[in-house]
Amino acid sequence: MLAREKTHMVHVGDVAIGGGAPVVVQSMTNTPTTDVEATLSQVARLRDAGCDVIRVAVPTRKAVAPFGVICAASPIPVIADVHFDHQIAIDAIRHGAAGVRINPGNIGSLERVDRVAEAAGEAGVPIRIGVNAGSLDPEVASRADLDLPERLAASAVGFVAHLEGQGFSDVVVSAKAHDVPTTIKAYELLSREIPQVPLHLGVTEAGTMLQGTVKSAVGLGTLLSEGIGDTLRVSLTADPEQEVRVGWEIISSLGLRRRGPELVSCPTCGRTQVGLIPIAEEVGRALEGIDAPITVAVMGCVVNGPGEASGADIGVACGKGEGVIFRKGKVERTVPEDQIASALLEEIRAGL
Amino acid sequence: MLAREKTHMVHVGDVAIGGGAPVVVQSMTNTPTTDVEATLSQVARLRDAGCDVIRVAVPTRKAVAPFGVICAASPIPVIADVHFDHQIAIDAIRHGAAGVRINPGNIGSLERVDRVAEAAGEAGVPIRIGVNAGSLDPEVASRADLDLPERLAASAVGFVAHLEGQGFSDVVVSAKAHDVPTTIKAYELLSREIPQVPLHLGVTEAGTMLQGTVKSAVGLGTLLSEGIGDTLRVSLTADPEQEVRVGWEIISSLGLRRRGPELVSCPTCGRTQVGLIPIAEEVGRALEGIDAPITVAVMGCVVNGPGEASGADIGVACGKGEGVIFRKGKVERTVPEDQIASALLEEIRAGL
Repeated sequence: MLAREKTHMVHVGDVAIGGGAPVVVQSMTNTPTTDVEATLSQVARLRDAGCDVIRVAVPTRKAVAPFGVICAASPIPVIADVHFDHQIAIDAIRHGAAGVRINPGNIGSLERVDRVAEAAGEAGVPIRIGVNAGSLDPEVASRADLDLPERLAASAVGFVAHLEGQGFSDVVVSAKAHDVPTTIKAYELLSREIPQVPLHLGVTEAGTMLQGTVKSAVGLGTLLSEGIGDTLRVSLTADPEQEVRVGWEIISSLGLRRRGPELVSCPTCGRTQVGLIPIAEEVGRALEGIDAPITVAVMGCVVNGPGEASGADIGVACGKGEGVIFRKGKVERTVPEDQIASALLEEIRAGL
Repeated sequence: MLAREKTHMVHVGDVAIGGGAPVVVQSMTNTPTTDVEATLSQVARLRDAGCDVIRVAVPTRKAVAPFGVICAASPIPVIADVHFDHQIAIDAIRHGAAGVRINPGNIGSLERVDRVAEAAGEAGVPIRIGVNAGSLDPEVASRADLDLPERLAASAVGFVAHLEGQGFSDVVVSAKAHDVPTTIKAYELLSREIPQVPLHLGVTEAGTMLQGTVKSAVGLGTLLSEGIGDTLRVSLTADPEQEVRVGWEIISSLGLRRRGPELVSCPTCGRTQVGLIPIAEEVGRALEGIDAPITVAVMGCVVNGPGEASGADIGVACGKGEGVIFRKGKVERTVPEDQIASALLEEIRAGL
């Protein structure tokens, strides 16, 4: 477990963010909010995939009433995502939002922000101040003395200071850009300038599956490995369930949280004498249905195979046309190639 | 461009590693090395995908002659990957290897390492000292006073010191583990203890496509963003072309090197009023055939859409059933939803 910076703890429904709580995985629905059934069905799928908190866009006043129905029926806390119209944010809070995200760049005057904070304070729900490089407050955006990460940070810090001056400190902050170095630097500035405020990490508009996964993993992984970040949302132009899967892979890779098994499998090379890729893929697919935090090694040759396989809970080290199955370092049995995947799965199930 | 630590420069064939050279992308063939035709065909595909240097396993003495044929015909420099038998390493060098990778944990005595270094020195090719958590030198592996990252680093540093004592300093070092925090810490130690030596980054046995991509991006991205690393190999239990693609995505995401276009595309949400995912995917696939380093934005709504779309070289900001096409911030035209992808591609091609 990496040392993480200690912030205030904020509560979104029954989920704690910051103050030493585990990193919270978020996503956002992409169904029309007015379609309550489709949205709730997506929320249920996202919860099953490991989503802790869900954000739902409330783009119009007409969407507020269905949003309230979604909040009441959702199995996980729901945050309202509101742009332009502060009255929608206030109404969403009154309809049961567990939190509200507003963007200082487009919500209007500080007076309007204060009205939202009043409603949030009355309801006891936090506000996420979500700054975005694509929609910066024009006043900050024009400051030639600051580079983009500094503008992102300055915008967020200004709003936090304003709200704290009004007696409202139940806030989470984000400052997203689609450029990874900009995102990293903006969050590093935030963690120095407002160390008490929980940070919501994200690389925005990161792109389709492969590019978006890599940009998010590099950006969020770098920050988390520095101890920065209390909650995250991976942004992908893909099914939101993939955002949740990638989010979990990022925090699991750093040992910050663990969900289900880990598969240690070697890249193949000219030494491999079995069809390892399909075996690893079959085992990987089967592991998706298992919640236990076991480590499973699928290794193709004698170089690192026996060492890794015996260090795992269950493992196989493959030789020419066969595989040696290990359990906690002890050889269980040797099976021919076409039985490796099934034997490994049998051993995994037997050990649960 | 991030500030990177300055190391000695090493040459693998005509490719420079370290000393301020661009980060070099490597992969490894998984065809039998004795199958020269299949191996060369895979090398050609990997070169087309962006692979700068290729590693080929030489597992037996019988594989040395075909390895020599591969070296002579390969369009990119070839490194021999050798375990256990130092004579194979010597023979591979004499058969034209542009470099050789040996593992201190299994190559045997220091005397044998010295014979390999003599052959490398005569041929003018570098040695990669490739330490691996799964196959540590037993003497180092048993040191209870060190944790695993310290053992990995100590093993590599010891071999570098030994070779430098023998007058051989044409080395690159790696210290890979399948655990990301262990890998990060091991390389941080190496960059402090042997700052002059170019480092080859990798998270080993990272797993299948999604998990392996995330673990590699988090581990290598964190190190590169700290200025550590001169070359990398992403290890995936998948087609090696995917390793090259992910490697490029990692270095591109940090602005260290750029290959082809960047797609900025938003995650969809309840505000999106067009079918954005298929549009972004179609544009993404079309961009794979384009080498120009342009930025293309595909945005789903009015919140960040116009800002991002106008900041890109070519972009679209979508509204209800239509999209506004921008070029360098200037509106070009508005097209109905079913023509967005084709209009965007037309504009991209017109601008090349």
